[in-house]
Amino acid sequence: MTVGIRGMGLIGGSFEKAFRKAGHEVMNLKDASSAEIGRCNLVIVCLPPLLVAPWVVEHKDDFAADALITDAAGVKGVVCPQIEPVAKAAKWIYVGGHPMAGKERSGYANSDADLYRGASMIFTPFGGTPSSAVERLKAIFAEIGFVRFVVTDPAHHDEMIAYTSQLAHVVSSAYVRDPLAATHLGFSAGSFQDMTRVATVDPDIWTDLFLSNKGPLDAVLSRLIERLGEYRDAIRGEDAATLRKLLAEGRAAKEASK
Amino acid sequence: MTVGIRGMGLIGGSFEKAFRKAGHEVMNLKDASSAEIGRCNLVIVCLPPLLVAPWVVEHKDDFAADALITDAAGVKGVVCPQIEPVAKAAKWIYVGGHPMAGKERSGYANSDADLYRGASMIFTPFGGTPSSAVERLKAIFAEIGFVRFVVTDPAHHDEMIAYTSQLAHVVSSAYVRDPLAATHLGFSAGSFQDMTRVATVDPDIWTDLFLSNKGPLDAVLSRLIERLGEYRDAIRGEDAATLRKLLAEGRAAKEASK
Repeated sequence: MTVGIRGMGLIGGSFEKAFRKAGHEVMNLKDASSAEIGRCNLVIVCLPPLLVAPWVVEHKDDFAADALITDAAGVKGVVCPQIEPVAKAAKWIYVGGHPMAGKERSGYANSDADLYRGASMIFTPFGGTPSSAVERLKAIFAEIGFVRFVVTDPAHHDEMIAYTSQLAHVVSSAYVRDPLAATHLGFSAGSFQDMTRVATVDPDIWTDLFLSNKGPLDAVLSRLIERLGEYRDAIRGEDAATLRKLLAEGRAAKEASK
Repeated sequence: MTVGIRGMGLIGGSFEKAFRKAGHEVMNLKDASSAEIGRCNLVIVCLPPLLVAPWVVEHKDDFAADALITDAAGVKGVVCPQIEPVAKAAKWIYVGGHPMAGKERSGYANSDADLYRGASMIFTPFGGTPSSAVERLKAIFAEIGFVRFVVTDPAHHDEMIAYTSQLAHVVSSAYVRDPLAATHLGFSAGSFQDMTRVATVDPDIWTDLFLSNKGPLDAVLSRLIERLGEYRDAIRGEDAATLRKLLAEGRAAKEASK
């Protein structure tokens, strides 16, 4: 198989190394000719979210008729609807994709052939996409280590990702921006490190991701702020019964989510 | 050395196993006689915070004249000042202690001889405590794996712990109490797990810890809620410049805290 990758950061670079390790030919599609793009059986667009659809549309006549096109954008509402009209008129098949893997550090230098080992991959096919295409994609991505596949629509994807990933990055950043953070050494154990681990992410990339998913992120962030206010009120009012109830609910929710 | 431990949960049990592994005699001081308590060279009180001072005061005449007494309470403002008057009138030496180690699960069943390997230990001696006593404690605790020691006063301890530990537990609990948590599987990677790891803690223990440190915890929680509001306002207003600035500040704060 020939895999074409456009965008060689952490995610694209890790796909490059992983598919190469799995024995496939991998091409960097930056500045590639139409003929080179036409040789790819699989194209993965790993550009920033807002650049994915324009690149796919620009090259709509270059892809091979039987090619599978996917992407790695962490938001799908600003990607999939924009590609849908050209994909429906073409012979190649586009299925939105989002690998649930990352690192605190972006860039090709941090890419890793094993980044996707044990990870989950989300696909967001259009209505009418043949299920055989999604099954082929699952088989291909399983080759490089993905163990779980979720198939959903862009709106549900974006709501879930706002909660499971984007909100965690907001909290991590906000958590560490406290005057006491500078002197935490010796006073902290695992929980502080857990809370602040992803605060090192690239501000440009994540600003784009947040603003590309404004509505869902605003909603989950607002709900979190409201819930934190419940704990604060209970602490301030020395309301042990409420505090115990909130913590017991949190424990039950964590157990139920395992 | 004979080490007496009162309170055999996760923390006390781990001290028991660790000191035994290091070759010392360890006694459980529950229902111990005055003579047994008097045989201990080191006593570690691992009861819930509000029970530490009453137990020490109750046994003030039982401790050996040259004994070192410490505790493991995660808050010191409700412990140390209450012990100070009896300690100053006694020959034994009390130094407040707090091991920076834990697990998501409490109880003796989860205790572990290696819990303290690589961890930090905080001591909060009274003004006037001979520094030789603190140095002896450091040497003793280094034997069971502690690698970093911090000496400070109860008020500073409680402010730092509110931020590095208690706030993380509040956030973790609040984070997972969202309707979307139940369906996170396949949509989450490491950051969701990091955010929610300590949501499983015991509601009774942590309610007591939170309410025993009400002022400092209210302060750090209020500051966090305020900072989260900054991100929300920037997202809602599509203010990319502010969002980038907040994320860049978070990244810088995380780097500076390493």
